[in-house]
Amino acid sequence: MTISDEIKTVRKELILEHAERLFYERGYRGTSMDAVAEALSVTKPVLYAVYDRKLDILIDISLRALNRSIDALRLARRIDGTRTHQLRDFARRFTDAVIRHQAGSAVFFREESFIPPEATREINHLKGCFDTELAELIEAGMAAGEFRVDDVRSASLAIGGMISWIYIWYRPDGRLSPEAIGDLMATYTLRLVGAPAGSS
Amino acid sequence: MTISDEIKTVRKELILEHAERLFYERGYRGTSMDAVAEALSVTKPVLYAVYDRKLDILIDISLRALNRSIDALRLARRIDGTRTHQLRDFARRFTDAVIRHQAGSAVFFREESFIPPEATREINHLKGCFDTELAELIEAGMAAGEFRVDDVRSASLAIGGMISWIYIWYRPDGRLSPEAIGDLMATYTLRLVGAPAGSS
Repeated sequence: MTISDEIKTVRKELILEHAERLFYERGYRGTSMDAVAEALSVTKPVLYAVYDRKLDILIDISLRALNRSIDALRLARRIDGTRTHQLRDFARRFTDAVIRHQAGSAVFFREESFIPPEATREINHLKGCFDTELAELIEAGMAAGEFRVDDVRSASLAIGGMISWIYIWYRPDGRLSPEAIGDLMATYTLRLVGAPAGSS
Repeated sequence: MTISDEIKTVRKELILEHAERLFYERGYRGTSMDAVAEALSVTKPVLYAVYDRKLDILIDISLRALNRSIDALRLARRIDGTRTHQLRDFARRFTDAVIRHQAGSAVFFREESFIPPEATREINHLKGCFDTELAELIEAGMAAGEFRVDDVRSASLAIGGMISWIYIWYRPDGRLSPEAIGDLMATYTLRLVGAPAGSS
């Protein structure tokens, strides 16, 4: 990686971080490229050197949100332990990702209708990966006699929805810490798939 | 109710129905009052006689979505039966409401940031009613020895999220019927609160 590439990567991160916050607070349509440049204290040419369309920022925010979910799942599945261990670990990691990137998660779910067909394909592919791999983990747990589920796909959507939904209600000054919420979601997830609650 | 009031009510229903669909497909900001009038095949003065601001349509869509959730809960709590019966009935009714009014649910959750402070108070009041009354039902089930929950508020948010999330993934041409989804959500809801699965 050249120094100029490295600078570009750092700039990209900063742009996405600020744009996420602005899109979250003012909506995607309500945020201009001028506003993004202003929040970053850079001129528009500097911003356009990295993103020449506002839409590409939204696409990258969405891809990052999806990739975080998939990373949470893949890391959990690599853990040496029972399927119950892995599913509990996934629920905690996924909860943590939604909470730490609340603005990004909200923007992805709210503004998806603006994503153009050429990017929809990649987004749908990643969604498919997430759903399939979560279903695989549940099926592996059923095969191991750890889980009891009648309909794996809907159980996977129920878990994904229950945890994704945290972006709607989480408040940093709320009653529960992110860790406590992660533990509760892990318990609910294990209950949902019929694992003996609280056991490992 | 006078005939003119009655006509106004019917018109309101029609406007909300069409606006829900347009806001769902094009976003709230992307939909003009002209577009709403056009979809209804009426002139703008006819539309403005019922709603003089686009914002008031969004507020009414949001209030209706919230009231449907609360109705599902209150009707279920009136059922003569155990808390398990009532919670199962709520999950089915709520699922049905989200599916039958998918566009309205989506618009409410996506566009909430446009709702002005004067309406936020009523919306927050209704949200509070829903959360409190669902928590009460869970607590009543715990008191009756039917449910085992460590943290009632988060269990209530988890159930609300899991079912609300259906607006994201439900497709009318999908694998499962609305009734089948309702039954599955009822099972997941009862499992989540630690009720003996499948029992009544």
